[in-house]
Amino acid sequence: MVTLTEVAKRARVTAATVSNVLRNREKVRPETAERVLKAISELGYRPNLNARALAEGRSSTLALMLSNLSNPFYPEFVLAAERAARKAGHFLMVCNTDDDAEIGRAYLNQIAGTLADGVLVMNTDIAINELCISAMHSAPILLAMWEHPEAPPALPCIAVDFARAGALAAGHLLELGHREIGMLVGDGCGGLQDARSNGFRAALREAGVETDTSAELVVRDSIDSGYAACMRLMASKPSLTAIFATNDLLAIGAGQALMSMGRAIPGDVSVIGITDIQLAHQVHPALTTVAINTTAIAELSIERLIRLIQQPSQAPEMVLAPPPELVVRASTGVRRSRAR
Amino acid sequence: MVTLTEVAKRARVTAATVSNVLRNREKVRPETAERVLKAISELGYRPNLNARALAEGRSSTLALMLSNLSNPFYPEFVLAAERAARKAGHFLMVCNTDDDAEIGRAYLNQIAGTLADGVLVMNTDIAINELCISAMHSAPILLAMWEHPEAPPALPCIAVDFARAGALAAGHLLELGHREIGMLVGDGCGGLQDARSNGFRAALREAGVETDTSAELVVRDSIDSGYAACMRLMASKPSLTAIFATNDLLAIGAGQALMSMGRAIPGDVSVIGITDIQLAHQVHPALTTVAINTTAIAELSIERLIRLIQQPSQAPEMVLAPPPELVVRASTGVRRSRAR
Repeated sequence: MVTLTEVAKRARVTAATVSNVLRNREKVRPETAERVLKAISELGYRPNLNARALAEGRSSTLALMLSNLSNPFYPEFVLAAERAARKAGHFLMVCNTDDDAEIGRAYLNQIAGTLADGVLVMNTDIAINELCISAMHSAPILLAMWEHPEAPPALPCIAVDFARAGALAAGHLLELGHREIGMLVGDGCGGLQDARSNGFRAALREAGVETDTSAELVVRDSIDSGYAACMRLMASKPSLTAIFATNDLLAIGAGQALMSMGRAIPGDVSVIGITDIQLAHQVHPALTTVAINTTAIAELSIERLIRLIQQPSQAPEMVLAPPPELVVRASTGVRRSRAR
Repeated sequence: MVTLTEVAKRARVTAATVSNVLRNREKVRPETAERVLKAISELGYRPNLNARALAEGRSSTLALMLSNLSNPFYPEFVLAAERAARKAGHFLMVCNTDDDAEIGRAYLNQIAGTLADGVLVMNTDIAINELCISAMHSAPILLAMWEHPEAPPALPCIAVDFARAGALAAGHLLELGHREIGMLVGDGCGGLQDARSNGFRAALREAGVETDTSAELVVRDSIDSGYAACMRLMASKPSLTAIFATNDLLAIGAGQALMSMGRAIPGDVSVIGITDIQLAHQVHPALTTVAINTTAIAELSIERLIRLIQQPSQAPEMVLAPPPELVVRASTGVRRSRAR
């Protein structure tokens, strides 16, 4: 690899001058700067960013720690976060913890404050106070998707009003005349999605509709689990006219289960999810869902993390993401006057 | 942030001794080492990996450059690559180029040889000779998925025998009695998937079946494009009894199109893809496909990249990934005696 010294030699200047050219061209005489830039280009020299970051007391890399990239929501978040980071001049390193708190700890110990200047943490099994200690000793940590805005954590976070997402789903089904509604509650990466199901139940209750707790199943977040759970649900409660799932993967699995049972969507049963992952509009019938605006959350997370790195001593602040929005597609419809 | 000097002060040793304890405990007297480790733990000190990497002339980060994380194949590859890298003690930084060669160049210029010690490149629009120049000047580059093993590139690579994958798909459809087969050829991230379609055509020809070029469509890699293309194909060629797609996204889209047209899968039309992404077994009916073994390719890529970093002056070597394998699921079946 070409070194700074070789560039200096070729340009007949000192290493300090090369360094000055790289950092602050104004300090160097134009003719000298031109000679240095020519030597850099001829030799194919690349300044060592690690070294520069160390010298300036900052690195240009952010880390994003997530529990499982195989859930399609995460790649979509990563995509948006990486774009936002890149626009702000930062690189984004993705750390996948494989749903294992130990791996998460290993990453935090090894990268926070060293390879990465700040860490975005999404749905982790590591306890908040453990994260606080790491944040104190090494680099700022921001929780990218806090599901309980009513109870701010001891760390800076972007909060998403998932209770409102659940309420929107309930409102939509009520408006279509549904009363007998099955519920699939996700319990995968990051724990039980209870803010969503509680919001859903509360909105039904407000409209005078009590949910049937025997028509609720708690399942792991995946299409496969949604499929299996919906099969069980419809077998035990064939009169259900709608299924609410706390995330799109479960809703997509439920939709496939209904089709394979010969139930028409939405003719016989309506299906609604939460998140609006890409697949939601790609499946047929396209899924009605409550969009949380993943891109906006990712951008807000990156922006706030960079701010934390620049002003580290702030009190933990909770920022509320834009409110969730109902996206009506083909999987929900008016309840049939006579249910099967 | 706690510094090495503070640790040294607290443990009443020199900074060099702390450094020795961190690198090679044997060099230091046990009592001294214990005192240093105690000070490290009490102060919450974390060795600066950047600094260490620099001091030892190596960093511990690999980069994976890919074109678009929104294609579900990539997250699956990233997941496997990240696991393999982690097991070998390396971090994996994911760089998403958004299908833009300029962004790819910017990443290469900025990270290769500085933040990252080696770069895995997947399906990029950057020309091979441009990558060669970067590899010469900065850090080793490995092409993670070369589709043409018959023509090795000027860079080290993992080659996948995609022509064989196409041939396996053809053999399966022939065995089931299909002769009128439509073809969807992907032209998304990384260019036209012609190795796959050529392998498919060659196998048909060998069996004495000529493909109907008017039943072939070149489309962008996505479920949506597969859906739209299949709609067009079936409208112009209603007698087709099978669809071969060069990747699973297109095949899944095609399957959804057939269902929405009221065509039974595989009763009326069989569908087969290539890759075996997770969704392939999650859709209903589950997709028959030719698995390329993404995990094995990712592991091989990481292993070879690390070897290149350790022994940089090797001639570019092409390593062939394990051969593709047919995975028969529910989307293919025997051709009906009387096609509609």
